[in-house]
Amino acid sequence: MSADILSLGLCELAAAIAGGEITSQAATEASLDALEQHGPALNAVARLRREQALEQAEACDRERRAGRLRGPLHGVPLAHKDMFHRKGELGECGAALMKGKRAAATATAIERLDEAGAIDIGRLNMVEFALGITGHNAHTGHPRNAWDPSRITGGSTSGGATAVAARLVAATLGSDTGGSIRVPSALCNLVGIKPTYGRVSRAGAMPLAFSLDHVGPLCRSAEDAALMLQAIAGQDPRDRTTSPRPVPDYRAALKDDLRGVRVTSARDCFETAIDGQVQGLMDEAMQAMAGLGATVAPGVLPGMERLNALRRVVMMSEAAAYHRELIRTRREAYNPQTTSRMVPGFALSAVDYLTALSARATCLEEFCAVAFAEADILAMPTTPAPTPTIAETDTGGDPGFVALANAVGSIVMPFNYLGLPALSVPMGFDANGMPVGLHLVGRPFAEGLLLRAAHAFEKATGFSARRPSFPAGS
Amino acid sequence: MSADILSLGLCELAAAIAGGEITSQAATEASLDALEQHGPALNAVARLRREQALEQAEACDRERRAGRLRGPLHGVPLAHKDMFHRKGELGECGAALMKGKRAAATATAIERLDEAGAIDIGRLNMVEFALGITGHNAHTGHPRNAWDPSRITGGSTSGGATAVAARLVAATLGSDTGGSIRVPSALCNLVGIKPTYGRVSRAGAMPLAFSLDHVGPLCRSAEDAALMLQAIAGQDPRDRTTSPRPVPDYRAALKDDLRGVRVTSARDCFETAIDGQVQGLMDEAMQAMAGLGATVAPGVLPGMERLNALRRVVMMSEAAAYHRELIRTRREAYNPQTTSRMVPGFALSAVDYLTALSARATCLEEFCAVAFAEADILAMPTTPAPTPTIAETDTGGDPGFVALANAVGSIVMPFNYLGLPALSVPMGFDANGMPVGLHLVGRPFAEGLLLRAAHAFEKATGFSARRPSFPAGS
Repeated sequence: MSADILSLGLCELAAAIAGGEITSQAATEASLDALEQHGPALNAVARLRREQALEQAEACDRERRAGRLRGPLHGVPLAHKDMFHRKGELGECGAALMKGKRAAATATAIERLDEAGAIDIGRLNMVEFALGITGHNAHTGHPRNAWDPSRITGGSTSGGATAVAARLVAATLGSDTGGSIRVPSALCNLVGIKPTYGRVSRAGAMPLAFSLDHVGPLCRSAEDAALMLQAIAGQDPRDRTTSPRPVPDYRAALKDDLRGVRVTSARDCFETAIDGQVQGLMDEAMQAMAGLGATVAPGVLPGMERLNALRRVVMMSEAAAYHRELIRTRREAYNPQTTSRMVPGFALSAVDYLTALSARATCLEEFCAVAFAEADILAMPTTPAPTPTIAETDTGGDPGFVALANAVGSIVMPFNYLGLPALSVPMGFDANGMPVGLHLVGRPFAEGLLLRAAHAFEKATGFSARRPSFPAGS
Repeated sequence: MSADILSLGLCELAAAIAGGEITSQAATEASLDALEQHGPALNAVARLRREQALEQAEACDRERRAGRLRGPLHGVPLAHKDMFHRKGELGECGAALMKGKRAAATATAIERLDEAGAIDIGRLNMVEFALGITGHNAHTGHPRNAWDPSRITGGSTSGGATAVAARLVAATLGSDTGGSIRVPSALCNLVGIKPTYGRVSRAGAMPLAFSLDHVGPLCRSAEDAALMLQAIAGQDPRDRTTSPRPVPDYRAALKDDLRGVRVTSARDCFETAIDGQVQGLMDEAMQAMAGLGATVAPGVLPGMERLNALRRVVMMSEAAAYHRELIRTRREAYNPQTTSRMVPGFALSAVDYLTALSARATCLEEFCAVAFAEADILAMPTTPAPTPTIAETDTGGDPGFVALANAVGSIVMPFNYLGLPALSVPMGFDANGMPVGLHLVGRPFAEGLLLRAAHAFEKATGFSARRPSFPAGS
């Protein structure tokens, strides 16, 4: 029964609980038990909220029996990256420096999931302070990929991605400053969406670089991602960058074909060259898209390398400013992977930073004018190469590690600077049997179209439905 | 007749035109002639729009006769600082470097005055790129104070302030990044208001430091300032920092007493000590306020010196970033006064800047908690000392000039960093017969209360109504 519950996706689970086929208590207990039993092998779990969660689940079951549903996630257990704070509770951000820290306020995204009826069952491991794309974290133990525990999960939403992939929990919140939702989604065979900058509030979540930070879900399907995004999207007075633009009905936008949709298959324009295996899967994915009725044409995206450079200046400046006191007084308490990419930010000038930041509006305008002139969706691999092992990439903060991180993120990072919506959807497996992601990018606020394309693609290809062999016998 | 028209304040002139007692053509011609005839002696005028203005005035007169009024400023001639751009027309910002530059877009403040029915008759001189509080500008000729042409006007709204004081035009737009509305208002015996950050759009106006820039009017009375502010205030999609908060009826808020209003007379807390003569006028002003029913108590404002330092970091960083290309390639074409205060911005780090900027919300909260605990208005002199001559302060960009600029602005500058509303209203004359200003500061969006206090104060004291002897025989 427990394994049956855990194999349900978010929408299925929500429907089963709302329909009375499964109690919230059973679902909550199943996820708590799974995280407790299998979480440690994946280094996925920071801490669980067993008592509060089961109490909430009981209340949800009582309310349901009385005919009341809190919202579209009534009674559904969820666990999140350890930077989505809840007032008065621990929020340690994957950092030894934050051990024992309790949050002053609850994140808006968490409040909105509460309002939608979700049960908050715990916090999952992450890269220290969300600054890392491989997933390494010596302080918590490196999270391990459910598809092959010797390999990296991707980061920074490392514990979340592998826990959702391993069917320990149905969905999770991630943050994405330079790929931290999309890269772990790709490496763990999930659908993860970084919405448009301004679509989802970051209030109460740990900031990494406030001009680039995005909040979004990691799930097992596009439909699940649509449900979760619906719950958290929309204007928030606590985050002044959020847009007043109304939130459309994302699930209603899902359709099973892509007729009339123009897709650019982007090639030969990324800072890092695409590996042959990955390009092969990409070509097959584009055939599948064409089979769904989309018009697919190859194309070159303008200025990817420059956009990466601009993003790095903004990221390093804002991260360095936020961490300046801790770096000054306790630098040795950081993981070297973290400081290797943050400390150069102290050498940047105010003019460097403001120049990079103020170029953003023009870059966005120019990029959209070219890239979307004859396309609605830009398609590319999420990462340029097959997923490496934890050991071979655990080189501390040496220049090789920094180069690796820049390479892994080289395709997805420009879209943090531009603020465009982007998602990763499974597009097959490499020679090692590791998942590979397809990255789809849209115009500002085109989340609905991206989810529709991902939904059609996964129905046609079936990659999203595959599951890892971990935990064994599940 | 022309002198009669020119002696009218903005409200009187608007009423006379709306009532048909004066034609817009007569008023427009009177102002154009006065600016042409007397503007050069004050170095006040950049350029006039005689033809377009008279055409517009004729149209306004025609419409009025047909019973149609465009708005509360129907047919009223106004001239503005040469940084409030109009699409396709020259906008030279007091800079040799901008000679011949035409604007790509019209400033929102100008659009709103157009909609209110005002006639745009020209552009007035200003400090180069608005970076200067004394008013010096070797490129345009130093604007001269109508109260004594050997003395400084204050800056950066230098030409505007002296033109309104000399009755060449009834009112003008200013910008204020560190006192550029309030200081020239004080030195030229005007009422000038820097509204709350976010109250008036800066779109289409030349930026100096976008986190500190404010747009507001310089007029001859609080009532005139209320009318002008009304026309330009309110949210603007082109300036994302503008507030959606509704704009109250500022003129309706004007009353002739101050019963129930608590005023802190701030002392012994400014970076620059207050001169005895100025303090004497301040003490008399506080007696007048008490006579109007206000409760006046002495008090100390927290952290003025630190707020000045934080403002300087933000100002220098943003100004340097905006000017980086011109500074790199054509530094010699700037006035030395400008570069002396901008170039140090290139030595600031991204972390310096972000630290100063991100302290703002906390500083505002802490300041308001203390300063407004038992007060509604904070009162202080606008400038700490009597107005010097142009010659004695024309020392180029030497350290003495920088120190002078910091001293002149030391009282008003913290309120650019905090973003609080602040105005200057005439409070008497020094031993040289030069005007001295009273600076009133309120809680966020308390513009109405400040204007009410200034209105009551000027009715009781009569200082605002006094006029300079320039132009002779007027």
